[in-house]
Amino acid sequence: MKKLINRPQDVVAESLRGFALAHSGKVRVDHDLATVYRAERPLLGTVGLVSGGGSGHEPLHAGFVGHGMLSAACCGQVFTSPVPDQVVAATQQVDAGAGVLHLVKNYTGDVMNFEMAAEIVADTADIEVATVVLDDDVAVQDSTWTAGRRGTGATVFAEKLAGAAAEEGRPLAEVAAIARHVNENARSMGMAIAPSTVPTAGKPNFTLGEDEMELGVGIHGEPGRATVPYAPAADIARQLAEPVLADLPFAGGDRALVLLNGMGATPLIELYLMYGEVAAILAGHGIEVVRPLVGNYITSLDMAGCSLTVLRADDELLRLWDAPVETPALRWGR
Amino acid sequence: MKKLINRPQDVVAESLRGFALAHSGKVRVDHDLATVYRAERPLLGTVGLVSGGGSGHEPLHAGFVGHGMLSAACCGQVFTSPVPDQVVAATQQVDAGAGVLHLVKNYTGDVMNFEMAAEIVADTADIEVATVVLDDDVAVQDSTWTAGRRGTGATVFAEKLAGAAAEEGRPLAEVAAIARHVNENARSMGMAIAPSTVPTAGKPNFTLGEDEMELGVGIHGEPGRATVPYAPAADIARQLAEPVLADLPFAGGDRALVLLNGMGATPLIELYLMYGEVAAILAGHGIEVVRPLVGNYITSLDMAGCSLTVLRADDELLRLWDAPVETPALRWGR
Repeated sequence: MKKLINRPQDVVAESLRGFALAHSGKVRVDHDLATVYRAERPLLGTVGLVSGGGSGHEPLHAGFVGHGMLSAACCGQVFTSPVPDQVVAATQQVDAGAGVLHLVKNYTGDVMNFEMAAEIVADTADIEVATVVLDDDVAVQDSTWTAGRRGTGATVFAEKLAGAAAEEGRPLAEVAAIARHVNENARSMGMAIAPSTVPTAGKPNFTLGEDEMELGVGIHGEPGRATVPYAPAADIARQLAEPVLADLPFAGGDRALVLLNGMGATPLIELYLMYGEVAAILAGHGIEVVRPLVGNYITSLDMAGCSLTVLRADDELLRLWDAPVETPALRWGR
Repeated sequence: MKKLINRPQDVVAESLRGFALAHSGKVRVDHDLATVYRAERPLLGTVGLVSGGGSGHEPLHAGFVGHGMLSAACCGQVFTSPVPDQVVAATQQVDAGAGVLHLVKNYTGDVMNFEMAAEIVADTADIEVATVVLDDDVAVQDSTWTAGRRGTGATVFAEKLAGAAAEEGRPLAEVAAIARHVNENARSMGMAIAPSTVPTAGKPNFTLGEDEMELGVGIHGEPGRATVPYAPAADIARQLAEPVLADLPFAGGDRALVLLNGMGATPLIELYLMYGEVAAILAGHGIEVVRPLVGNYITSLDMAGCSLTVLRADDELLRLWDAPVETPALRWGR
């Protein structure tokens, strides 16, 4: 295993150290609890947004902390849920009197630890907490890491759109409803041509033959639907788009926000090419992509591959999407 | 070779197709000449900025076309210089009466073709052209692809800072002087732990043993100073920073803009960790990083590794850096 790291067990702490230095003035990092906050204090009377999960998916979640998006991100060890203490502290820190929304990707450990944190907060503090669990990945019903579907790319949309609603001063129930609406109207599917390697494991977390790819792979490299023959980009796009479109189902005339996401080790030249293929398929179905996003947003360490997320848009979601955002990884309009 | 592509010879055209769709409204792509322009017309009386080079370094250069940065980017085939026709057309298109600056990375083919284009423009059109060649890479004096030093990370700084000056309406000589000043005050060094693969070649462009890394590697995977033992991030940071700092030389009390750049297949978690190591070394030398930039900005297809660029800053460069920019890959303040 070759990586730009020191001791494998220090990767998350040391990466957060660099992250804090790279974005000082914008974010504040509690290094003891591996939690990232906005540098600026929350506006009184606005809903706080807390997310988090295992590290290794950067820029998710820490890269989405800032104006118009998350209030805090709790960083677990690589591919390991954050512990309840982190979530409790973050919830208390970001509460500005209007309650706190927990955005949780559907992985057993994450759901359990966020739930436990919400119970502790309910028992010990006068903070209203709502929770929305994201489970947009159509690849598999249950998996190594989940009961039910996994949460993937829709998380990026939920964090942005609920974050914009919170910034407008809307009440907790409405902010949560937007995140839930995003999850209900978004579907994802991923694939990999090469595995990632967890630093402390030191070896790839799955194997693929020279002519194979993993279809429906999870963001921890967990198995997808099948190991299938490696195929040209146009075929890969079809193998991702068809199950995504069929699942909601999306229909001709739908407008969509689309994320063509890199898994970490796939360069932009390939992601743009894949986006071109996906856009052609969506156009063929009469679906209008009104806001495309192409790049590395929810990754799996150094896995090579991509995922597709399609979110059915309406005027309100578009307005929230266009609202100013200023985070390390997404920034516009401010 | 597994990549998210169709036919290897179509990669650049197809990637540009997706790029155009992903950023429609912001950029306009001349697909016949593989050249990217801003969607908005240039402001009369402002200097145009044209850059370009081989593809495979995304987001450079196409991702830097937009308000406050480039006017146009001419995309060559992978690791292949753009042809003079592309540069001539771009120069004519972006001229708004104040002349055009060519920003050229120092590679033999690029320098020659931009020079030829400038001569054609001088013979056929009444457009003043100035050229600044970037050669910031301290790794090697001459290389497979260059006479003299190679142009790498300083290009990102030059495009942003000269772009900001052009946006202010400053004359060609001043805009060129800023790019030249950037080049004179910036130094870079890169390294790789895994090679890239040119699609049409189909096999890695160099080989490294399980315990080796390439120090001073170029952005085409061309040899650097030496193949050396793979080392922890702290050592790698030292091996990059020392030759960079010694070369200008930088001195205690200097302020700096720093780019910790990924080569394409290295995930953010590692780049932030590396940035932390580099920042510690710079602090140890009394150098204050006033603007850090961490991420994939000038890549080498799917090469794994990173590069460090340090630019000695002054008040004017900082002001120009902070000026609004709105491009696919860099965006703030507008």
